[in-house]
Amino acid sequence: MKIGILGTGAVGQTIGTALINKGHEVLLGSRTATNQKALAWTAQNGSNAKNGTFEDAAVFAELIFLCLNGTGAVDALQQAGSHNFSRKVVIDVTNPLDFSHGMPPSLLPEYSNSWSLGEEIQKQLEDARVVKALNTVTAKLMVNAALVNDANHNLFICGNDIDAKNKVKHLLAENFNWKPENILDLGDMKYARMTEGIVPFWVSVMQQQGTAMFNYLVVR
Amino acid sequence: MKIGILGTGAVGQTIGTALINKGHEVLLGSRTATNQKALAWTAQNGSNAKNGTFEDAAVFAELIFLCLNGTGAVDALQQAGSHNFSRKVVIDVTNPLDFSHGMPPSLLPEYSNSWSLGEEIQKQLEDARVVKALNTVTAKLMVNAALVNDANHNLFICGNDIDAKNKVKHLLAENFNWKPENILDLGDMKYARMTEGIVPFWVSVMQQQGTAMFNYLVVR
Repeated sequence: MKIGILGTGAVGQTIGTALINKGHEVLLGSRTATNQKALAWTAQNGSNAKNGTFEDAAVFAELIFLCLNGTGAVDALQQAGSHNFSRKVVIDVTNPLDFSHGMPPSLLPEYSNSWSLGEEIQKQLEDARVVKALNTVTAKLMVNAALVNDANHNLFICGNDIDAKNKVKHLLAENFNWKPENILDLGDMKYARMTEGIVPFWVSVMQQQGTAMFNYLVVR
Repeated sequence: MKIGILGTGAVGQTIGTALINKGHEVLLGSRTATNQKALAWTAQNGSNAKNGTFEDAAVFAELIFLCLNGTGAVDALQQAGSHNFSRKVVIDVTNPLDFSHGMPPSLLPEYSNSWSLGEEIQKQLEDARVVKALNTVTAKLMVNAALVNDANHNLFICGNDIDAKNKVKHLLAENFNWKPENILDLGDMKYARMTEGIVPFWVSVMQQQGTAMFNYLVVR
């Protein structure tokens, strides 16, 4: 599958490499076509790895991952051109974290409590089928759920398009070892308020555990 | 032990009855000394059960549970008299939930993201040793952790006083079947932003699960 990734940080690179290893073609998009991190990633990941602008990634892709910094996400989508996302499944991994007051982070005030970055992204990309997913775990665990507790832990997703959510579940199961029954669909994109809202808590538990390699299992 | 409970709703009554059943003396405090729910509770719970005003509960108690509605909590503490909490361990079970926009709830804006009700309560009761605890699970589970997954799930607590947190851990283990190793101390009272912040998420998972009898287990 042709997959575009917007964002060249640890999350974008980790997801990109994992998808290359599963046989997909990946274009890593950044603000400029000559981003050094993207060029280095492309050089290390073989002929299925490409890089370009945000727009290049959106145009190239059948399916798109958003791995952008929360503060720059909306601007990046505008650079990419919202028409280039039309009808495509977009997996939104972004978190609107605000580290400006130190640790633990808070949320950017404009994307806290009664509005979320996920909702804003769906609003910006009105014809796209956005699914909020993977933003509640660390990058290495995103791409290999089996690294924690034999994959017995939960991912919380949401979005407005049920078919898109099913496609994302399938993709995460096929490529990243997530057990479909452990992927819990909380509802429409409004629930991004919840799955983004628990990320400052996640950072606090990370501090308490002394590792980012953990997740939650809902038990009854 | 003489325990005061501020708040006569399901949480206050459930905790009160559980403590009576463990042999404690409990005074259930409300806005007026003739609150009908408190009188009914007292009549049903034997000679160790008492009721009175918020102030009566604070004066009576060696240890205090706050089981107040988020919107009325600060007002209730002012009625009770902050000097009556001096040096006492106060277990803050409150959540600043805002249901005015329907389900799922958000947080009251004044207690969201960068400030919490737990921090406000510690500020109001400056000489008290406030521990935020139990607010992340349903009332029946608060008082009997063994009702879910053989008590293998986590409680997240925080507060500024380490000795008070240890006393609360001990009390929850002795009376409510919480395994001490499953009670995770996230840090000082600032972390109430996190443990209150995950409650709208909890409501969303409750909707998804179809029951409130669940909790999270941190797995590695």
